Amino acid sequence: MSTNKVRFLPDDITIAVESHETILDAAVRAGIAVKSSCGGAGTCSRCRVITKSGQARVNSTGKLTEEELARGYALACQTYPQSDMEIEIPETSRLAAHQVLTSQGQEFDQSITPTEPLFKKIKLQLLEPSLDDHVDDMSRLYSELNKMAEVDSPCIDLEIIQKLPQTVRKGNWKVTVSLADIKGRTEIVNIEPGWDYKKYYGLALDIGTTTVVAHLVDLESGESLGVEGTYNKQAVFGDDVISRIIYAVEHKKGLEQMQTTIITTINELIDNLVEGSHVDHNDIWYITCAANTTMTHLFLGIDPEYIRLEPYVPAFNSINPITAADLSIKANPKARIYCLPGIASYVGGDITAGVEVTGIDKQDDINLFIDVGTNGEMVLGNSEWLVACACSAGPAFEGGGIAYGMRAMDGAIEHIRVTPGTLDVYWETVGNKKPVGICGSGLIDCISTLREAGVIDRTGNFLPLPANERVQIIDGEKLFILVPAEESGTGTDITISQTDIKDLIRSKAAVFAGVQTMLKTVGLPVEAIERVYIAGGFGRYINLHDAINIGMFPDLPLERYKYIGNSSVKGAKMALLSKEARREAEKLAEKITYIELSIGNDFMEEFVSALFIPHTNVDLFPSINQACNPV
Amino acid sequence: MSTNKVRFLPDDITIAVESHETILDAAVRAGIAVKSSCGGAGTCSRCRVITKSGQARVNSTGKLTEEELARGYALACQTYPQSDMEIEIPETSRLAAHQVLTSQGQEFDQSITPTEPLFKKIKLQLLEPSLDDHVDDMSRLYSELNKMAEVDSPCIDLEIIQKLPQTVRKGNWKVTVSLADIKGRTEIVNIEPGWDYKKYYGLALDIGTTTVVAHLVDLESGESLGVEGTYNKQAVFGDDVISRIIYAVEHKKGLEQMQTTIITTINELIDNLVEGSHVDHNDIWYITCAANTTMTHLFLGIDPEYIRLEPYVPAFNSINPITAADLSIKANPKARIYCLPGIASYVGGDITAGVEVTGIDKQDDINLFIDVGTNGEMVLGNSEWLVACACSAGPAFEGGGIAYGMRAMDGAIEHIRVTPGTLDVYWETVGNKKPVGICGSGLIDCISTLREAGVIDRTGNFLPLPANERVQIIDGEKLFILVPAEESGTGTDITISQTDIKDLIRSKAAVFAGVQTMLKTVGLPVEAIERVYIAGGFGRYINLHDAINIGMFPDLPLERYKYIGNSSVKGAKMALLSKEARREAEKLAEKITYIELSIGNDFMEEFVSALFIPHTNVDLFPSINQACNPV
Repeated sequence: MSTNKVRFLPDDITIAVESHETILDAAVRAGIAVKSSCGGAGTCSRCRVITKSGQARVNSTGKLTEEELARGYALACQTYPQSDMEIEIPETSRLAAHQVLTSQGQEFDQSITPTEPLFKKIKLQLLEPSLDDHVDDMSRLYSELNKMAEVDSPCIDLEIIQKLPQTVRKGNWKVTVSLADIKGRTEIVNIEPGWDYKKYYGLALDIGTTTVVAHLVDLESGESLGVEGTYNKQAVFGDDVISRIIYAVEHKKGLEQMQTTIITTINELIDNLVEGSHVDHNDIWYITCAANTTMTHLFLGIDPEYIRLEPYVPAFNSINPITAADLSIKANPKARIYCLPGIASYVGGDITAGVEVTGIDKQDDINLFIDVGTNGEMVLGNSEWLVACACSAGPAFEGGGIAYGMRAMDGAIEHIRVTPGTLDVYWETVGNKKPVGICGSGLIDCISTLREAGVIDRTGNFLPLPANERVQIIDGEKLFILVPAEESGTGTDITISQTDIKDLIRSKAAVFAGVQTMLKTVGLPVEAIERVYIAGGFGRYINLHDAINIGMFPDLPLERYKYIGNSSVKGAKMALLSKEARREAEKLAEKITYIELSIGNDFMEEFVSALFIPHTNVDLFPSINQACNPV
Repeated sequence: MSTNKVRFLPDDITIAVESHETILDAAVRAGIAVKSSCGGAGTCSRCRVITKSGQARVNSTGKLTEEELARGYALACQTYPQSDMEIEIPETSRLAAHQVLTSQGQEFDQSITPTEPLFKKIKLQLLEPSLDDHVDDMSRLYSELNKMAEVDSPCIDLEIIQKLPQTVRKGNWKVTVSLADIKGRTEIVNIEPGWDYKKYYGLALDIGTTTVVAHLVDLESGESLGVEGTYNKQAVFGDDVISRIIYAVEHKKGLEQMQTTIITTINELIDNLVEGSHVDHNDIWYITCAANTTMTHLFLGIDPEYIRLEPYVPAFNSINPITAADLSIKANPKARIYCLPGIASYVGGDITAGVEVTGIDKQDDINLFIDVGTNGEMVLGNSEWLVACACSAGPAFEGGGIAYGMRAMDGAIEHIRVTPGTLDVYWETVGNKKPVGICGSGLIDCISTLREAGVIDRTGNFLPLPANERVQIIDGEKLFILVPAEESGTGTDITISQTDIKDLIRSKAAVFAGVQTMLKTVGLPVEAIERVYIAGGFGRYINLHDAINIGMFPDLPLERYKYIGNSSVKGAKMALLSKEARREAEKLAEKITYIELSIGNDFMEEFVSALFIPHTNVDLFPSINQACNPV
């Protein structure tokens, strides 16, 4: 097996590659985050790199144009170095730090006071032994603990007992005992001599497929000391959970690599948090984590293979807390990690967390919770019943598969308006940068405004219109030029094509069909929904009017919608600071009935009916029925 | 710091020693087991070695005679090599394999059938998932487990869950689940695909200060596959628990060294057992251990310092099971180790085990349990109440401190009779070898027969007698020659001196005073004792008539005495094979009231009264009152 060297530019990092390795493999090992939505399958063409020197065997050139090929472009995942090479990774192929939703929606920012955190320290004054009271040290500790904290037969590690005689005497029979809740049982995880104990912290984690967010929390006061968010470094192995699972299963040590990658991501967040707050890693004693089912499996190193294979069975939904040492998380090695319980393969602990944050399980009214990403996860119900489903919305809303789609990073068009007649375009971008692409909320606007401007019909097809430079046919496909090359940040036109529009309609149809299927299952009309909670990063920028207008969300008065931000991390924080919240989460996960949409024809029928703007049955959208151009 | 080399002969092992190390230290590191009753204090003079060449700094020559010094003898613990040396270790200074009480008393050999062993494997047939039944793998397993074994929310290790999806599918939804009982909770410690599971074993351990015994048990059938016993290698650090504690506390890494030593001892027993039974170490899944409180502390590496300091408080009496990996025990790393709960610093889990074996806690009659060793531990009571105490009998009965005292090894005089008048001596030795010393049972005989022969008076003093070559005065001390040099295995006289006799009387007085103090505490006469259970290795050879004759044991009809052998290992085995027995042990340890003999004057008064043969109050020994020589 021959070994060549690849030098990455402008990073100037050189790394040896085996002949069976691609440039993408080498970049991953070199710690350079390259976009790879398809996880190295050669289909997304996002891992474009420029060959500066050297020879390579090229498997596929994907969607690269003749011109790009002439300029030395190659797909990193399809290129196997055959000699030493110099490779430039352009900025557009890098995973950039993008907007990460680190906090909850302002409207929904209920404060949390620590009632009974999962970890606490309590001061004990033990009775000094005498010849008349020669009870052993441990029983002495336990009886005081029982008296002061109503803790009965706690677990305790051998190494704490090994030092116990010295500890209790060093503190002159005063000790500070650290108690961690292990799913209802209490464990003594540390004993300090005396009462001058060290402060103690917890970490609430939201592990998303795309982004990871961590809150550092003072467990005594409940105060958040800092929030950090970043992209999930696993992105180099694919954008969505399915590509991640495939990578984990099909690559030797793929699962291990996937686990190490998410742990590295988390450890970097922790490093930033502790540095900013002057906290010692060792004083982080409890970590709660909300994540979708695949992320939870990968985080814990649990085989995720059967999540993606019919009948879609996860290895587990609920698991006993494990230790930071088990996962090499940079916290106290004895810190416990509690993962909020999931519901099914495609409705995870992040949804349990979100539902708990909304409190819809405690209300008489019927409410709907929606978290739209690659998968649209939704929960419908009230205090008596709750149903959940996950519809595969596809990656369109996260920019995947859409020619100029992108995530909500700097330069992404997040709002757009097309003037009927002139077809003039007004847009707003994230960070007010020159536009480089269009993110989910922009895409929804786009469909809505193109329909309102009469550019497309109810099925999404381009309508015959008077000639306008905005509408063109390129390579046999009709497209609409949103931003001409001279105004864009990329030097090329930013467009939306017929194919893109059809993709987006399929995505919105999946979301709406999910809602309809749940309603049908419980036999209720849309109007029965008292309130809709929208969660997730994508939801923040969404123009609700447009989302209803294209038939993605139910046609309810806008005031019934509430944006609740990152409810996943908020739920994780609730669990961290209240045992009751943890218990509620467990109960909630058991209470929610999962509806498998692939059984029967209900969903498929609803999906097909929803492949119109707004819907085949316009009666479902009374508010836009008349306003809409009746073409 | 200079380094010299010591070559041990005849072993021909050479080892480097630092200038601060003794020859004993070097021998320990070289793995040569040298006697060291005092733990290196220079007082017992048992670690005699012969200097063949080289220079050394000698701290003390202890009890070595001029003649021995002239022949090159030195005490290994007091000799610091100053040059390379050649050292011969004579056979008499080595810890020899001696009789180890590996099994229970024949009369008391109740069989144990495994009712509910602490570890078991059960076969489960899981329901295969479908789109209509998409419950996660773990819940699927748990619900079947609950149905078949009534196990609710068991604990399970992350690494088992990590492989769970593959395991259940490899076995085509048939699995064999290994369940271990962790003090009432159940833990899943292994899952095998299919129903062709590997056999599984347990180990019952008795860790004595002097000897260690292990039974290898088939956990499915309850059958003992083998028994091995050996001396406790910690013996090189001292004969009794106090010297072991001092060594552990006062030497840097002393505790670690002490722990490693007992674990090495146990691992060698395991190696022998698995070799003899063709069992795989990894198939040993549960270990139960009965030991005195100090041994339990040292085994677990728990600071034992305060056991020996007033008010004599152990770090713990009862502890949750730990894993074989925690202690580097050569069993499956996940094997659990359960230590039977102790009662106090000087009444340990071995006594709890013993009492459980006798079942005195279930009887209406009042019974007495005695385990005589360096400490006489005893428990008195019935189903309603139980009291325990420990009297420091001293090492005399185990041969310690007695000039020709030894443990019950080959050549130890175990029975002896002196003919009144002629003072002719008849003796029997262990293994029918030439006598080399006298063990505990022989020493009891010795006092009894010397008193019956009129050689000593009621206080143990030599009586004025017609001249007889058996009675001599050497170095100003009177002694009785039990075996003349020409008949002995050592080439020297085997004698018992006035000092030895006084020591033995103190020892027997301590035992009897313990019994009397307990009786006084509960307000009962000796006759109230329906049965006396004698436990331990020393008890096996004891001549009960003599033990009563010297006033060591209460004067009760001989048929009320029952020898129960190694009740410690038997109790460990019971716990291994029955969860109920484990629960009983826990209850028993809590139920027994420990009487601290150092409080008040009761014990001291009883002790002083017992410093006569048989006792100051002869009414306590009606059966021997008249038979005894009335001098």
